[in-house]
Amino acid sequence: MAPCNSLLLLLFAFLGTVTPAKSMPAFFPRASYFQSLTAKQSKATKPKIAYKTHYFPQILDHFTFQPKSSKIFYQKYLINSQYWHRGAPIFVYTGNEGDIDWFAANTGFLLDIAPKFRALLVFIEHRFYGESMPFGKDSYNSVETLGYLNSQQALADFAVLLRSLKHNLSSEASPVVVFGGSYGGMLAAWFRLKYPHIAIGALASSAPILQFDDITPWSSFYDAVSQDYKDASLNCYEVIKGSWAELEALSAQKEGLVELSRTFRTCKNLHSLDSVWDWLWSAFVYTAMVNYPTEANFMMPLPAYPVKEMCKIIDGFPPRASKISRVFAAASLYYNYSRGEKCFQLENEPDSHGLHGWNWQACTEMVMPMTCSIESMFPPSGYDYKEFAEGCKKKYGVTPRPHWITTEFGGKRIDQVLKRSGGNIIFSNGMQDPWSRGSVLKNISSSIIALVTKKGAHHVDFRSATKDDPDWLKELRRQEVEIIGRWIDEYYADLKQGIDNA
Amino acid sequence: MAPCNSLLLLLFAFLGTVTPAKSMPAFFPRASYFQSLTAKQSKATKPKIAYKTHYFPQILDHFTFQPKSSKIFYQKYLINSQYWHRGAPIFVYTGNEGDIDWFAANTGFLLDIAPKFRALLVFIEHRFYGESMPFGKDSYNSVETLGYLNSQQALADFAVLLRSLKHNLSSEASPVVVFGGSYGGMLAAWFRLKYPHIAIGALASSAPILQFDDITPWSSFYDAVSQDYKDASLNCYEVIKGSWAELEALSAQKEGLVELSRTFRTCKNLHSLDSVWDWLWSAFVYTAMVNYPTEANFMMPLPAYPVKEMCKIIDGFPPRASKISRVFAAASLYYNYSRGEKCFQLENEPDSHGLHGWNWQACTEMVMPMTCSIESMFPPSGYDYKEFAEGCKKKYGVTPRPHWITTEFGGKRIDQVLKRSGGNIIFSNGMQDPWSRGSVLKNISSSIIALVTKKGAHHVDFRSATKDDPDWLKELRRQEVEIIGRWIDEYYADLKQGIDNA
Repeated sequence: MAPCNSLLLLLFAFLGTVTPAKSMPAFFPRASYFQSLTAKQSKATKPKIAYKTHYFPQILDHFTFQPKSSKIFYQKYLINSQYWHRGAPIFVYTGNEGDIDWFAANTGFLLDIAPKFRALLVFIEHRFYGESMPFGKDSYNSVETLGYLNSQQALADFAVLLRSLKHNLSSEASPVVVFGGSYGGMLAAWFRLKYPHIAIGALASSAPILQFDDITPWSSFYDAVSQDYKDASLNCYEVIKGSWAELEALSAQKEGLVELSRTFRTCKNLHSLDSVWDWLWSAFVYTAMVNYPTEANFMMPLPAYPVKEMCKIIDGFPPRASKISRVFAAASLYYNYSRGEKCFQLENEPDSHGLHGWNWQACTEMVMPMTCSIESMFPPSGYDYKEFAEGCKKKYGVTPRPHWITTEFGGKRIDQVLKRSGGNIIFSNGMQDPWSRGSVLKNISSSIIALVTKKGAHHVDFRSATKDDPDWLKELRRQEVEIIGRWIDEYYADLKQGIDNA
Repeated sequence: MAPCNSLLLLLFAFLGTVTPAKSMPAFFPRASYFQSLTAKQSKATKPKIAYKTHYFPQILDHFTFQPKSSKIFYQKYLINSQYWHRGAPIFVYTGNEGDIDWFAANTGFLLDIAPKFRALLVFIEHRFYGESMPFGKDSYNSVETLGYLNSQQALADFAVLLRSLKHNLSSEASPVVVFGGSYGGMLAAWFRLKYPHIAIGALASSAPILQFDDITPWSSFYDAVSQDYKDASLNCYEVIKGSWAELEALSAQKEGLVELSRTFRTCKNLHSLDSVWDWLWSAFVYTAMVNYPTEANFMMPLPAYPVKEMCKIIDGFPPRASKISRVFAAASLYYNYSRGEKCFQLENEPDSHGLHGWNWQACTEMVMPMTCSIESMFPPSGYDYKEFAEGCKKKYGVTPRPHWITTEFGGKRIDQVLKRSGGNIIFSNGMQDPWSRGSVLKNISSSIIALVTKKGAHHVDFRSATKDDPDWLKELRRQEVEIIGRWIDEYYADLKQGIDNA
C-alpha cells in the first residue's frame, strides 16, 4: 500500500487510476472519486444568483520579461453588483483549484452579507483552472505551459485584475476584502500579507498555511481525521482501523479480488486492492472534512453530521459482521447517499491527460509532508521526500522546491511576524476539519484573529445560511461580519483623515 | 534636444554615445560619464577591509517552473564576520545596480556600527550586475536572457540566500536588518514589506519609492536639482539656465561646433551639440546628488559642498564672460577635480553591447516619468509615454509595464498602507538630493520613520564617518542606530517571550 503522503497528494499522478477531468474543485487530498462526479454535480450547483461572467486580459508571467511573458490569456471572473454603489466595499473571492462557478455556488456567505455592506462581489478564477487556461486545451500538455501555474503568479493576477477593475469602476478608494476557503484561504491570507495596498483584510477559512516543512507535525492531518471517527464512536474508529488488514488478508487469498468486487458492488471486476483502499480512504477523509451540521452537497450529497451517520452504520451491524462489510456500507453513505448508484466504479480509466493542476502544484511548491501515525485509523506510514521528488521528476520532469513556500510566505515563527504585521486577517477553522491542524488556531494580535469552532468543518462558514444552522455557526458568522465591519470602518476613517489632512 | 525624461533614464539606450561598461554602479540618471570612469575608480575604492567573497548557487527564476527556471547561477556576496557571534544580528546590504564591492566600499556606515551590534555584515550583489551574471558574458545579449532581470527576482534572491545563510550558520533566530541606498534602498524597503518573516526592519536611504506613476510631480526631480544651485547662488542658477540657449545659438553658427570643441577642450572634434549638453547635464545633476558636506569620492572625486564650489566658479568670472565658458569651468570641477585630464572625451564610442542593466530595468518596470518645468534650470520638456515605449520596443523588443511597480509594491495612498503595516522602516533623505522628492519625507507611524536632513545628499548617511562630519550628520546616524537598536531589542524580547511561552 502506498504511504499516506503520496496517496494524499499524488493519487492521480502516481496511481493513474483517475477519470480525466477538466478541473479539480475539491481541496487537495484524493479528489479522485469526487472528480469523476464533478460533471454531474456542477450542473446541480450552478449559481442560481445573477453573477455576470467576465474575462480579463491577463498577463502570462508577471515576474519575467521574456518574449513569451507578455502573452495575454483570458481570466474568468464573476461579478454581482446588485447591492453596490461607487466607493462601497469590494468583496473578492480569491479562487482556488477549480471552476470559479463552483466556488461561487458554495460560498453563499458572501451573497448573504453583501446587502449589509452594499458590497460588490467578485469571484476570480485561479489561472489553469476552469476556463482560465493560458494555453487553451494545451495548458496541461507540458512543463513549458504548466510552468506558469503557481501561487505567486495567481496572487499577481488578482492584484492586476483588481487594480484594473477599480480603475474601470472609477472606485479606486473602495476597500477590498479578500475571502478564500482551503487553498483559496491560503491565497487570501497571503494576498493580504503581500498586497496590503490592495486588500485591507482577509477572511481565510480552513487555510492550512502552516502545513509546510515541519511547522505542523506531519501526522496531524490523519490523526485529526481519525479523531473525528473516534469522537463519534470508539468502535467505529476501531473497525476502520482494523479493516485494512482484513482487506489485505482477503485480497491475498485465491479469488479474494473477486469476492471484494462482489462485496464492493464494483461495476467491473477489480484488478488490485489499491483501488478499494483509495475508495474507502477518500470516503473517510472527505466525510471528515465536510462533517457539516446540516445536510449539504459540497463534494457529495450528505446528511447532517455525516461522520456520525457513517459510524451509526458501522456500529449497527450484527456483532459477527466483517469489518469489510461495515466499511463498505459506511463508504456507501458518501458515494451513494442519494441512492442513485447501482454499482461503483472503483477503478477508473487511466488519466489520459496525465496532468492535473493540483498535482502539479503539489510537485512544485505545495509540498506538504504527511504521515500516518500508529494512533491513526490508517495503516502507519512515513514520509520519504526523496521518493516523492523522484516521482515528481518522473511524472512531470520537475523537481519540487520544498522550502519555497515558507521562504516566500513565512514559516516557523510566522506568529511573531503576523503579530507585527499589518494585521486584519481572520483565520477561521472548524476542528472537525483535519486541515485545521495546519492553520492558525490562536489569536495572534488584536487584528490577526483565530475563530475556532469545535463542531465546524471545511470552510463551513462560507456556506449559505440555512434555517437549520446551529447557534455556534450563526455566532461564528456574526463575529466575522463584525470584525470585517471594523476593518472597513477603520479604513474609511483613515481615508477621511487623509482627505481632511490634504 | 532630448526631453528631460528620456535623457534621464535612457541616455545609453537612445543616444548611443557611451563607453561600454560591465556594470553601472551609479544610481539611475545619466551615468554615462561616470561609467567611463568606473574602471579607474573601482580600483581606488576597493574595500580595504576584510570582506570575504562568496558565491551562492542561486535559482534563475523563482516564479515559474519552466524547464529553464531551475538553472543555477552564482550570485556574489561579501561577508564580514569579525564582530559576530551566533544569534547576533545580521546586517544585509540589498545590492543595487552595480558591483557589490563598490557598494561595500561606499557603505562604511555598516562597518562603523557593526561592533556595537556585534553584527554580521552581508553585501549581496544584484543579479545581472557585477559578477552575478546568470548567463555569463551572454547575460546582456538578448531579451531571452535579460528577461530575468527585475526587482522581484532580486528580492527573492535575497530571501533564498539569507534563509540558506542563516541555516548554514545555525543561526536561524538572528534578526536580519536590511540596508540599501538609492535603488538598493527601494529594494530594502520593499524587502521589509514583502518578506517581513526574513527582515525585521529596513534602513532605506535615498529611496525614491514614490517616483512612479503620478505619485510625485513629474517635474520635482529637476526642480530639486535647480533649487540646489539657486540656494547656492541665484546668479549661478541663472547662468546655467541661460547657457542652453547660448549653446544652441553657437552650435547653429558656422564653425560653431569647432569653437565648442575648443571651449570644452574635447579630445576629438564634436559632431553634435547633444554630447556637450549631456556632459554638462550629468555634471550638474550628479553634483547635486552628491553634494556632500565633506570631500568625497563616490562618483567622482569632489570637494565638500561641490554645488557651492561650482557656483563660486560660475560667479567668479568677470561680468562679461560668456555663460558657456562659465558652465564649462563649473563642469570641469566635476570631471577634473583631481586635475588629471588634459582633454575631455565628450563623445564616446557607441555602446557595443547595446544593453545595460538599468536601462533595461527602466524599459520594463522602473518607469519613472520626469519632466523639466519652466522654473528649472534645464530646458523645459514634457513626458511622452508613447515615445518612451516605442523607444524601448525598438531598442530591446520589450514593452514597458508602467504600472507594475505600483501594483506590486503600492502607489498612491501607500502612506495609509505603511501606517498599518508591520513598520520598522527608516526612510532617510537629504534635501540636497533630487531623489529625495520621490521618497517618504514625513513620519508615517511610530515605526515608519522619515529622517530628513536639509543639508544631506544621496545616501550620505551610508558613508564612513570622518572627522569632518558636521553635527547634523552625526545626529542622523545616531538616530538611525538608536531606532535599529530598538527594533532588535523588540525582536529579542518577542523571541524570549515566545520561548518562555513554549
